[in-house]
Amino acid sequence: GDGRLGVIFNDNSGDAEFTSRARVAFTLSGETDNGIAFGGSFRADNASSASSGTAGSVFVSGDFGKLSMGDVDSAAEAAVGNISGVGLTGLNDTHELTYLSGSDTDGDGDSDFLAPLPQALYEYSTGAFSFYLSAGSPDGASESTTTPNFTTNTYDVVVLQSENVYGVGASYSGDNWKVGAGWETADLTLSESLGNNIGSLPAAPVVTSGTVDSWYIGGEASFGDATVKANYGDGDLIQQWGISLDYVFGATTLTAFYHDEQGQGAATGLDSEAYGLGASYDLGGGASLVAGWRNANDDNKADFGIKFNF
Amino acid sequence: GDGRLGVIFNDNSGDAEFTSRARVAFTLSGETDNGIAFGGSFRADNASSASSGTAGSVFVSGDFGKLSMGDVDSAAEAAVGNISGVGLTGLNDTHELTYLSGSDTDGDGDSDFLAPLPQALYEYSTGAFSFYLSAGSPDGASESTTTPNFTTNTYDVVVLQSENVYGVGASYSGDNWKVGAGWETADLTLSESLGNNIGSLPAAPVVTSGTVDSWYIGGEASFGDATVKANYGDGDLIQQWGISLDYVFGATTLTAFYHDEQGQGAATGLDSEAYGLGASYDLGGGASLVAGWRNANDDNKADFGIKFNF
Amino acid sequence: GDGRLGVIFNDNSGDAEFTSRARVAFTLSGETDNGIAFGGSFRADNASSASSGTAGSVFVSGDFGKLSMGDVDSAAEAAVGNISGVGLTGLNDTHELTYLSGSDTDGDGDSDFLAPLPQALYEYSTGAFSFYLSAGSPDGASESTTTPNFTTNTYDVVVLQSENVYGVGASYSGDNWKVGAGWETADLTLSESLGNNIGSLPAAPVVTSGTVDSWYIGGEASFGDATVKANYGDGDLIQQWGISLDYVFGATTLTAFYHDEQGQGAATGLDSEAYGLGASYDLGGGASLVAGWRNANDDNKADFGIKFNF
Repeated sequence: GDGRLGVIFNDNSGDAEFTSRARVAFTLSGETDNGIAFGGSFRADNASSASSGTAGSVFVSGDFGKLSMGDVDSAAEAAVGNISGVGLTGLNDTHELTYLSGSDTDGDGDSDFLAPLPQALYEYSTGAFSFYLSAGSPDGASESTTTPNFTTNTYDVVVLQSENVYGVGASYSGDNWKVGAGWETADLTLSESLGNNIGSLPAAPVVTSGTVDSWYIGGEASFGDATVKANYGDGDLIQQWGISLDYVFGATTLTAFYHDEQGQGAATGLDSEAYGLGASYDLGGGASLVAGWRNANDDNKADFGIKFNF
Repeated sequence: GDGRLGVIFNDNSGDAEFTSRARVAFTLSGETDNGIAFGGSFRADNASSASSGTAGSVFVSGDFGKLSMGDVDSAAEAAVGNISGVGLTGLNDTHELTYLSGSDTDGDGDSDFLAPLPQALYEYSTGAFSFYLSAGSPDGASESTTTPNFTTNTYDVVVLQSENVYGVGASYSGDNWKVGAGWETADLTLSESLGNNIGSLPAAPVVTSGTVDSWYIGGEASFGDATVKANYGDGDLIQQWGISLDYVFGATTLTAFYHDEQGQGAATGLDSEAYGLGASYDLGGGASLVAGWRNANDDNKADFGIKFNF
Repeated sequence: GDGRLGVIFNDNSGDAEFTSRARVAFTLSGETDNGIAFGGSFRADNASSASSGTAGSVFVSGDFGKLSMGDVDSAAEAAVGNISGVGLTGLNDTHELTYLSGSDTDGDGDSDFLAPLPQALYEYSTGAFSFYLSAGSPDGASESTTTPNFTTNTYDVVVLQSENVYGVGASYSGDNWKVGAGWETADLTLSESLGNNIGSLPAAPVVTSGTVDSWYIGGEASFGDATVKANYGDGDLIQQWGISLDYVFGATTLTAFYHDEQGQGAATGLDSEAYGLGASYDLGGGASLVAGWRNANDDNKADFGIKFNF
């Protein structure tokens, strides 16, 4: 399990807020008669979703590699990963790359819908080399949003569907370094029915569809007490990059990061920029004092508190 | 706990879908000073419902028999049971008898509302003979459904209530066989207010009410590696029967079933028919490879994957 | 974990209802290298809320005292507490004082919103003396209720906000007695937009705001087999008092209570009165037979059954 206790400061609301959390994780494991390992893990607060494969994950692994299913990372994310973040709560994880599938683009801690769940991830490692393949559930996912506008007495219906979500990735690890690369693709369909009068049926939607893909590279290297991580992604919707530095002295770790996204194609203009600073002091026994600050699109947020691992 | 990982094929949607699951069950037990056992069990994903008695169950047992309460089977279902089903996911459990109370008629894995929860089940066994009594919560249950129709600008309100839900059952077991019989009854009230204009209050409902009951018999017998199960039910709403065959050779179990329902009385015309085939291969250590197919009212569904028990 | 199994009798509905429950609690604990204890606890059915700090709690404790955060009691409730209640299910806990923050005024088992969660509670004990400080989350809480009235075709929007929720308390314990006192305050804002036409935007609300506070004293004392508890509270909204008697003979505990509330200021006229009787018989091993009855504002409710602790 894990927990935390602290305070978050929000620039835009002006008010501080308390944050506390206690969670428990279940880990299940077994082995078949001919030596194939299997298992699963999920958190108690995700138990309902884990029961339907939209949280947690299960796996089988053997000489053939490891096959996982559930709310797993995409192949690209598994190979390339993310740079280091800051803060007690992660401060919305604005340091993370926006992966097409399996990523947490809105910072709510759940994978976003572009990866139809359960997602499958296959990993095969030989020596320092690892290879990854992923696929979202073949039946795809769909999210419908209805937005009323009471001043014009109209409403908008927007449906976003994703299908054929696949990824591939590979990584190579040395003594103090690691590099990874990945690619992923998805078929997206956007159906928009805008400006309908409230009380009437929605008009036939305007449908836009297409295939989007993106590739990613990343790496990390340690130089004595310092670790540098960097990644870069380029695709139909976003060009993005990030870099982080972790510096350890004694029980303290200092972290700084910069992450930049430029919208491309249909997402032109949706740019974002985030940078932050953080510190963590290990109290031993699983507890750390943690503080962090980040600026994301000129919104400042900071937090401070104690983090627990049980 | 248990888990699974696999693929489901749906005839009507055309698309396959991934399925994965991880669950954990809690089992609680104790004993009073004078030797009365008590306990409870529920799954982590049902923890909220178990806290209000609509999932999981608790029990006390001693010389007087065993009294359980919660989301328990009705007496008839406890005595007669179900034939064998197929598939990794159960494929909507279309092999199961439709019991008035405590049954999962819509295949969603939860008991359906006709049994007002928590339900109480009393069991008494002496030698090969077992006797069962059940009662739904005396305050009954009620389910209201509002269906809008935007083309006619009207809406329907339908309320279904159940009360006085009782059941009785008995079973007798031999060395390689078992027979059971049961009966159950419920008072149902259907209140329908149809075709109301949207924006207006619903009109006074048309109320239909009555007592329905049903009796069931079933049995199973093993002949070497083969096990046959059969059951039959007849009541005010449904006449139904089913038969299944399980055949074991080595680590493999093959299963076939047929289940037929004919609507009667107010349910005349609501007929359904399901049949299926399945295979399970025991990998040892709690894991099995499972595959199944079933046809239910001409809808084909199949699945394949690995099932875990921890 | 805990559980129960029994029957509730409701005077107003006429119908009895079954009640059953099974729950599991998680307790986490650890210690830092320099001896600071930390931990947390929450129930499986509250796991989601515990993950966001609105149920369960976490703490750090050492020479400096103990700091808890989550769904914790206010300082006043921690110092003064409640008198004894009756029944298998608590019968809506009508014996409890209505604390401004951290209390369960509607008897649903959750703390009510006036304490913006997570709430922080600091405790410091030295010898027989304990001191308490509490604060709701600084960003406050807000609850919006929209009530449609289809006969007049209008709707009301009422928003209640609380901020600056603080409490202080102290208690002193002797051999067979304990006394406590506490005070708490909150800034409340009530925004009411009443009688809006359905289909139109709500009118600008009428806003009423003010600071309310309340103080509380309470004590308990044991005289042989009898324990008397009493408390009193007086504030801007409620004047209230309660008294309870627990009498133990052998394995049986008899309990009687009386609790009275008089609305004051803006709450004038919102009076309530509750009294009840209960009995509990310890079966050993964590099980008890429990029966209770209470009258709250002339609504009679009784229950009976078995309670488990695992």
